[in-house]
Amino acid sequence: MHWKARPNRSAGLSQADWAWQTGAMTHLLLAATALALLPAAQVPDIQPAPSPGQIVDAAKANEWIAIAPTDLLVMDLAPDAAGEKRRVVIQLMPAPFSQGWIGNIRRLAAAHWWDGTSVYRVQDNYVAQWGDPDGEDPAKAKPLPAGLATVPESEYTVSAGELVVHERPSDEARTAPHAPRGDAYAEFTRFVQGWPVAYDHEGEWPVHCYAMVGVARDLSPNTGSGAELYTVIGHAPRHLDRNIALVGRVIAGIEHLSSLPRGPAPLGVYEDPAQRVPIASVRLASDLPEAGRPRFEYLSNSSDSFARYADARASRRDPFFIHPAGGADICNIPVPVREVTP
Amino acid sequence: MHWKARPNRSAGLSQADWAWQTGAMTHLLLAATALALLPAAQVPDIQPAPSPGQIVDAAKANEWIAIAPTDLLVMDLAPDAAGEKRRVVIQLMPAPFSQGWIGNIRRLAAAHWWDGTSVYRVQDNYVAQWGDPDGEDPAKAKPLPAGLATVPESEYTVSAGELVVHERPSDEARTAPHAPRGDAYAEFTRFVQGWPVAYDHEGEWPVHCYAMVGVARDLSPNTGSGAELYTVIGHAPRHLDRNIALVGRVIAGIEHLSSLPRGPAPLGVYEDPAQRVPIASVRLASDLPEAGRPRFEYLSNSSDSFARYADARASRRDPFFIHPAGGADICNIPVPVREVTP
Repeated sequence: MHWKARPNRSAGLSQADWAWQTGAMTHLLLAATALALLPAAQVPDIQPAPSPGQIVDAAKANEWIAIAPTDLLVMDLAPDAAGEKRRVVIQLMPAPFSQGWIGNIRRLAAAHWWDGTSVYRVQDNYVAQWGDPDGEDPAKAKPLPAGLATVPESEYTVSAGELVVHERPSDEARTAPHAPRGDAYAEFTRFVQGWPVAYDHEGEWPVHCYAMVGVARDLSPNTGSGAELYTVIGHAPRHLDRNIALVGRVIAGIEHLSSLPRGPAPLGVYEDPAQRVPIASVRLASDLPEAGRPRFEYLSNSSDSFARYADARASRRDPFFIHPAGGADICNIPVPVREVTP
Repeated sequence: MHWKARPNRSAGLSQADWAWQTGAMTHLLLAATALALLPAAQVPDIQPAPSPGQIVDAAKANEWIAIAPTDLLVMDLAPDAAGEKRRVVIQLMPAPFSQGWIGNIRRLAAAHWWDGTSVYRVQDNYVAQWGDPDGEDPAKAKPLPAGLATVPESEYTVSAGELVVHERPSDEARTAPHAPRGDAYAEFTRFVQGWPVAYDHEGEWPVHCYAMVGVARDLSPNTGSGAELYTVIGHAPRHLDRNIALVGRVIAGIEHLSSLPRGPAPLGVYEDPAQRVPIASVRLASDLPEAGRPRFEYLSNSSDSFARYADARASRRDPFFIHPAGGADICNIPVPVREVTP
């Protein structure tokens, strides 16, 4: 028996993998038996094209890059109604992206500022947001730690002169074919150090894909401190690119945010404080005891496996598919990230 | 007081609307007072650009098109843990799209086939799926009603010769500017009778945006009957376009599917049958008592308001935004749908 009709994405086992392990295996074995009767030269290649997930699973150990514990933000929510732990792990962006806000976030984590705050807004097909639900009320707002930077709007974009962050020069050439028909929001897109970015002749900026984490803010020229954060839980809201700072992405536990009850329309803010989800603690992994630190790696964008993975995402040739698209938007090529267990 | 940093989407009140009603109003009123001292000819237009939501709210009554009750599928899930009702309303696609599968769906609803089945799979950033969780087990599968059509894969695309579905000839011209930089998956995209579609010289096909409903299937050449359905609850999985039949979209109550607990990876299938969400009934609205029928309208793609809405989605000029994108992918321009209350 195998499950009917499971459209599926690259992370982990794909539809093709599933079929391979169950029902479809039968047919392939029968075919192999029949082919054994043919002369070797006439044996066609019956190996199905690998799925994106299979390509990632077969990547070599040296194609994975460890994420520094200083770049991991570990957010523990209060346990759920059944008493289950809810841990969300956020990877912070590397320089030169959003460093002013990320400096603030490190300071807020060091001050344990988020402990006792909450997830207070969940809007369907948009964002889940956390921090101080009373942040806008001077009489009730939780004081912020001293020394937070005020970051100018110009920092939403990294100017072309600062772009020295590529893993190697061939990055662009490797990623260019993945979106041959272009991007609706920017002249070009590519991956830089494991991150989806858009760019043009003036500069480069991170983009709002699913699970990306951004800095909530007030009206311009306010750019937010980093105390109020959100993550994308729906279709990529790319219209926010260059309008809000992106500082990272959820790499584990996003289901603890994306499956929360939606707050009332239009903005999803929980009206009843009892609906808020308490945040027990937020720490950099480097500030956790070494035994309890989560460890993660991402697949290098310069690796052969990443190039094959991205190509397979853009043109699915594994058995479930009959019509490879020949292209993909950058948010539909999520950079593979895996947890490393000791 | 106004809430900090609420990125927001077109449906309903926007960030700009929110600011307008609260904190930002103060500043605008002060500005208006100062301007009263200037000669009339020198008074600049201080009215902020309307948000997409404001444009939709201001649309004229005759720009809205009623959705026939024969095109509404009403799915009532079992009440939630708090005893709250959970109704999901699905709009079915018009001819010539996917009519073979939609005929099957009408037959399944008339036979009350879904009553007693369940939502049995929820995969994060992908799909929620419902129907018979035992459908692949011949010993346990719920028998399907007689007379369901087997639809060929060629029906995933409407050939160019059949394309007589436009509301009026200017449809294409009106929608073309919304994605000036193109689409990563198809040569062109547009809206047809309220639906997002892609097309090229060979034909036209509906696309996998958030909330679209598709027909789960087995490996090709199977195309599915329509008994097992899914809806998109994450970033648009456009690689499924032309690989799976799309038959409609959720226009109300998607939060009852998108906020369900995710099943275990990789596919999100609930391992414990107790986790499944029972479906109480699925009916066409036209088969419900007239007093209890939900009524919906969509904003005509041929209307001036839709053109302004789509343009505003692609280039946000309302006060929250400092950098209009100048483009949008078609899935980031959701067609406005509203419920009509008697």
